[in-house]
Amino acid sequence: MLDEIGSLCPPRRILLGPGPSNVEPRVYEAMRTPIVGHLDPYFFEVAEDVRKLLQVVFGTKNQFTVAISGTGSAGMEAAVANFAEPGEKFAILANGYFCDRITEMARRYGAEVVRLEKPWGQPFSDDEASSFILRERPKVVAFVHAETSTGARQDGAAICRAAHEVGALVIADCVTSLGGMPVEVDATGIDIAYSCTQKGLSCPPGLAPLTVSDRAMGVLRARQGVPRTWYLDLKMLDDYYQGAHRYHHTAPITMFYALREALRVVVEEGLEARWQRHRRNHLGLVAGLEAMGLTMHVAEPYRLWMLNTPCVPEGIDDARVRRRLIESHGIEIFGGFGPLAGKVFRIGLMGASSTQENVLLLLEALEGAMRAEGYKPAGSGVEAAESFFAAHAA
Amino acid sequence: MLDEIGSLCPPRRILLGPGPSNVEPRVYEAMRTPIVGHLDPYFFEVAEDVRKLLQVVFGTKNQFTVAISGTGSAGMEAAVANFAEPGEKFAILANGYFCDRITEMARRYGAEVVRLEKPWGQPFSDDEASSFILRERPKVVAFVHAETSTGARQDGAAICRAAHEVGALVIADCVTSLGGMPVEVDATGIDIAYSCTQKGLSCPPGLAPLTVSDRAMGVLRARQGVPRTWYLDLKMLDDYYQGAHRYHHTAPITMFYALREALRVVVEEGLEARWQRHRRNHLGLVAGLEAMGLTMHVAEPYRLWMLNTPCVPEGIDDARVRRRLIESHGIEIFGGFGPLAGKVFRIGLMGASSTQENVLLLLEALEGAMRAEGYKPAGSGVEAAESFFAAHAA
Repeated sequence: MLDEIGSLCPPRRILLGPGPSNVEPRVYEAMRTPIVGHLDPYFFEVAEDVRKLLQVVFGTKNQFTVAISGTGSAGMEAAVANFAEPGEKFAILANGYFCDRITEMARRYGAEVVRLEKPWGQPFSDDEASSFILRERPKVVAFVHAETSTGARQDGAAICRAAHEVGALVIADCVTSLGGMPVEVDATGIDIAYSCTQKGLSCPPGLAPLTVSDRAMGVLRARQGVPRTWYLDLKMLDDYYQGAHRYHHTAPITMFYALREALRVVVEEGLEARWQRHRRNHLGLVAGLEAMGLTMHVAEPYRLWMLNTPCVPEGIDDARVRRRLIESHGIEIFGGFGPLAGKVFRIGLMGASSTQENVLLLLEALEGAMRAEGYKPAGSGVEAAESFFAAHAA
Repeated sequence: MLDEIGSLCPPRRILLGPGPSNVEPRVYEAMRTPIVGHLDPYFFEVAEDVRKLLQVVFGTKNQFTVAISGTGSAGMEAAVANFAEPGEKFAILANGYFCDRITEMARRYGAEVVRLEKPWGQPFSDDEASSFILRERPKVVAFVHAETSTGARQDGAAICRAAHEVGALVIADCVTSLGGMPVEVDATGIDIAYSCTQKGLSCPPGLAPLTVSDRAMGVLRARQGVPRTWYLDLKMLDDYYQGAHRYHHTAPITMFYALREALRVVVEEGLEARWQRHRRNHLGLVAGLEAMGLTMHVAEPYRLWMLNTPCVPEGIDDARVRRRLIESHGIEIFGGFGPLAGKVFRIGLMGASSTQENVLLLLEALEGAMRAEGYKPAGSGVEAAESFFAAHAA
């Protein structure tokens, strides 16, 4: 059997898809650190460090700031399962795939779901969001801050204002924004925010950062009964990570080491500097794509800095282009899906993958792959991006 | 902030508690391997290797053999949430803490739970188990093969026979047996078995190996409706890992690398040889403990080879003994909890931690710590264990 299953030997990949991003070398090193037990005082020191570092990155003072022992979708399910009460109204601002996933989870947990819908990639205006929330008067409102399926950002301030006016809690999906663009949980008024480790934080996937406001923890503590889920029960996780350190599950210790180191890298770079790096590389990429003649799916003010969605030109098969990129350069980008299948590329510039070098490499490789598929670029993407970078010093 | 939160610097620990065990050095090395994307063909090759290796270790031909993206308790919740139907009878053979945890989960998911109870650490006889199941005629029967809270093993064959006679599926918790003692899913007749990575497999915690029989998958596929949990929905995981490779969540790729390497280590050693190593070290430890005058909580035929529960002698404070072990030797062992609080030590000899050297080291350290607490050993534990090991060559 071991003749067939030898040593690991993955192909070299430059990860420019919607996540995971390339992992920081220091994070790999941290993962070699010998583990301690899940109830060892040292483990709780590490969890406490992670809490403090996540508070900085989330922009929050929330005491309940933890990493859930699963991937980003486990963070989403923790948020939904603990706050969607059976039969209570749960409102979703739906304009992309991850909004639909929240919908599916909220229905499974028995909530009465109401949705305001827009085409994938079109954000809701303050008025649209507010009037929906004030009319529906739900118990919970959920929105996706950075939609990985579309590349669009949704502002949260008006949503939070309207939700709090009707006494609702707000859940924000920050899976694709954390660590690469401002999240600002407290300033925005978000009650529950969750994310992942493998995008803006450039750590391998395996944990879901999550933060809950004191107000939302109060709602949770006041509730009779328990959520359906035991593994993701936030009150039990609160008892494990804080307070009594009561045994719940065996936390993935090595992943905590990894996340701690990834967050140290973020704080060392500085949040503001990190955001500007992501913004600059995003703008350089867009300059290059537009010079080639591509148009962006998302209107300019709402584009994510970490995920770019240029439209696939008429007559070009995006899957063939992507195959060329991976086969000749080892570069992973993704296509669209759902209503955007075949219509957009999804190009991530996240965490350690967001570099000027990667932008230029991708533009060159993409131009070659598109030409090979019969596309005639309007101009040189690489030159346009180089000009942009020269004019906008890092 | 980074003044306070410096480089990782954990204390050195010899992990002889109920898990995690010390990690195989090769597994740490595997975790440095650069990641690929979660939909990369190479990732699915790795997942397929993991499937084949897990089949060997579980003793099964089940096609649906995967690693769930969470820790052992996520495996438990996946088993319960997918197979406990609201209002249907779910029978539990309850003789330890993890049986109670299954009970709690099954109730949360709406099952009508019936329990046959015995004191913690006392296994059910074939007759007891069979007559309970034949009388209750449940849809699902759950038992804990190796109870981490008590150190007792529960045979599954009679349970499976009776369950299948009434058309019930059988769930077995193999969290503390997999990789250290025979599990034999197919030969026993188990339908759903789950485990963890951080005990007998000596991989860090973070994944939950899980296997489901074709028969149980048939039951699942025939069901109308969906389980409450989305993250742990086994039909969706089946679509992701096998078949269409439809995107579900971003699997923790580095943990898959780690588990693959840990399983390669197990198969290289040979399952039978690995079991015998665990058995020999367990017997050597028991010889030593008994020579010191300690008695074992579990009757001889039912003792786990991976988790030993000597009784704490009258008048000795187990917490003080454990503190001495960790402070002077860096050795982690655990105490009992629930009805066994203060009454037993829980000493793990799991995976890479199960060595003759660790047995002798622990006996020496334990004897010293107990003496310091006023205990007068009947004889030398180290000498008894050395005689045992000399008489029973590895």
